[in-house]
Amino acid sequence: MSSTVGKVIRCKAAVAWEAGKPLVIEQVEVAPPQAMEVRVKILITALCHTDVYFWEAKGQTPVFPRIFGHEAAGIVESVGKGVTELKPGDHVLPVFTGECKECRHCKSEESNMCDLLRINTDRGVMLNDGKSRFSINGKPIYHFVGTSTFSEYTVVHVGCLAKINPAAPLDKVCILSCGISTGLGATLNVAKPPKGSSVAIFGLGAVGLAAAEGARIAGASRIIGVDLNPNRFHQAKKFGVTEFVNPKDYDKPVQEVLAEMTGGGVDRSVECTGSINAMISAFECVHDGWGVAVLVGVPNKDDAFKTHPMNFLNEKTLKGTFFGNYKPRTDLPNVVEMYMRKELELEKFITHEVCLSEINKAFELMLQGDSLRCIIRMDA
Amino acid sequence: MSSTVGKVIRCKAAVAWEAGKPLVIEQVEVAPPQAMEVRVKILITALCHTDVYFWEAKGQTPVFPRIFGHEAAGIVESVGKGVTELKPGDHVLPVFTGECKECRHCKSEESNMCDLLRINTDRGVMLNDGKSRFSINGKPIYHFVGTSTFSEYTVVHVGCLAKINPAAPLDKVCILSCGISTGLGATLNVAKPPKGSSVAIFGLGAVGLAAAEGARIAGASRIIGVDLNPNRFHQAKKFGVTEFVNPKDYDKPVQEVLAEMTGGGVDRSVECTGSINAMISAFECVHDGWGVAVLVGVPNKDDAFKTHPMNFLNEKTLKGTFFGNYKPRTDLPNVVEMYMRKELELEKFITHEVCLSEINKAFELMLQGDSLRCIIRMDA
Repeated sequence: MSSTVGKVIRCKAAVAWEAGKPLVIEQVEVAPPQAMEVRVKILITALCHTDVYFWEAKGQTPVFPRIFGHEAAGIVESVGKGVTELKPGDHVLPVFTGECKECRHCKSEESNMCDLLRINTDRGVMLNDGKSRFSINGKPIYHFVGTSTFSEYTVVHVGCLAKINPAAPLDKVCILSCGISTGLGATLNVAKPPKGSSVAIFGLGAVGLAAAEGARIAGASRIIGVDLNPNRFHQAKKFGVTEFVNPKDYDKPVQEVLAEMTGGGVDRSVECTGSINAMISAFECVHDGWGVAVLVGVPNKDDAFKTHPMNFLNEKTLKGTFFGNYKPRTDLPNVVEMYMRKELELEKFITHEVCLSEINKAFELMLQGDSLRCIIRMDA
Repeated sequence: MSSTVGKVIRCKAAVAWEAGKPLVIEQVEVAPPQAMEVRVKILITALCHTDVYFWEAKGQTPVFPRIFGHEAAGIVESVGKGVTELKPGDHVLPVFTGECKECRHCKSEESNMCDLLRINTDRGVMLNDGKSRFSINGKPIYHFVGTSTFSEYTVVHVGCLAKINPAAPLDKVCILSCGISTGLGATLNVAKPPKGSSVAIFGLGAVGLAAAEGARIAGASRIIGVDLNPNRFHQAKKFGVTEFVNPKDYDKPVQEVLAEMTGGGVDRSVECTGSINAMISAFECVHDGWGVAVLVGVPNKDDAFKTHPMNFLNEKTLKGTFFGNYKPRTDLPNVVEMYMRKELELEKFITHEVCLSEINKAFELMLQGDSLRCIIRMDA
């Protein structure tokens, strides 16, 4: 048993003191895990748009000082009371949304929106006592979506940890803990394109490319990437994208362009931008009779989805998804196995790598749109 | 072989000479069936809202003089060239939309929207030669949705005829040829409520009650009827409706009322009114994570379906359906068998009965909202 069990751990973490200001590497104190909590040594974390979004805090509730980070991989250091599924040494992926296994959502085969542990971006504390496990000189530093992986050690509710194959390389599978699973699952679990079908992907960032990867794995014969940035097509080819449409190149709505290209509409579409117009196009571009559109991108608060209802009566289906409909604890270990069997390729998503002390560089790369995934090594 | 084969048949039909004017029983001439056509002796027809809607022709293309009628049952009198699946004496249900069995929709397991024979309300002629088979003194009388069952004999494309069990009573199963199958299939084929689930039905007319009947057959434990007319609840109980909500009784949106009644939302909803507000409510009232809303009602041309896209990201699904997703030739015979096995009850839908000479009374009953289904006996 580790000598740190039951004790406060002092370690390095990247602290966001203020919205939009560079993170600062600080020495933080990480309290031991309480009931149903687990303390995890983070080895690798990655940066996802959601971190940047809440760090900028434009329009969201500002919760500072805070430790961001939610796409990561680590090893269990110690477990709190009542934790039976995990033990020190287990390899885990922390996830921003959880699975309590007790609520109606967890008991439903159709939902992954756990009542207890569903994502909460405003809460900066742990559920058990309403307090933070992080502090600097006694002053609390807040959590982010229950994961806070920009720290060498973090405390996570057991329901937000997926136990994975210890043979899996953590510097690859870490990216399954958010964006890649979100896009992949949107296609594999929700859109479910039949073999040989056509799939349109709106937005060729990491999530969209993961959706394309899902279409490739499902055996789609045409994967049409839609993006306003033509530079993204070259990279997208590696992810199975066979054709590219830039809506700016046409005078008519992109849904009409896609319908003409495919004899009436694509079989499936996956929307990964969050733009309301792209959402409407993604729905309207699917074929009547059997077309299914899946919304992944997070819209703005005031957006309204608007379409003619006859589009529904023509037997088009519109669905949304959250975390690719994966249940974190039940399903994520199997996604890791897909990678281990070489069905799923992860290397191509990892375009950059920095060490913790360079974490602000990862933010810059994402803001410039230069990276798909930049991984951050905690021990380097 | 019948002595009428290959000859013009003179018989009675109810002709609509002008929009909104009472039908007139006339002696019409019915030409023999051409290639891929079948001449059917209609024994029973029923009246459906769609007949009334196009007879009123408020906003639709007026096609007159015309023989309406599309919910019916009959017996094949003779068949045209190329027809191999049907022979004289076969019992059939004419259907307003067809199944050619050759197009992409017919070959898809997911669609029933046949490219060749999909409903066309503006066309008053047969596909083979672009002409009508009905005439009076050489002047053409136009068809309606390829069925025109308000005639003792009619000519129908073979793809619009379901061959059914000859033991089935035609004066009961005739109503399966449109509205009842539409509502039933919306629930059984599209909403698919799990056993023990809650289902909200918007609109308690014949289609809505058929959707409720589907929920009853599927084993739903709560079937909540939503209608502006409180008188409909009494009748609805016979169809398995367990609770009733009149949106007029509340100050808040009905979706909120339903969410409170069901701990967050119903498991499934089926919208059978065509009102755009009911469509939006039907979608927003389903539970996040697993809720499915199905749109059946036909909206107005200028309606816009509008909702916050976050409703989709919360894993609600929105689907539409056309003819309950039944393929007319492939599936309708099985629905007749459901009735023969007494799983499906049809008698309770048939509230009135008239003979052909009284057909205008059936229109009056429907316009007054007094009938669910009024059947019209052609031979009485």
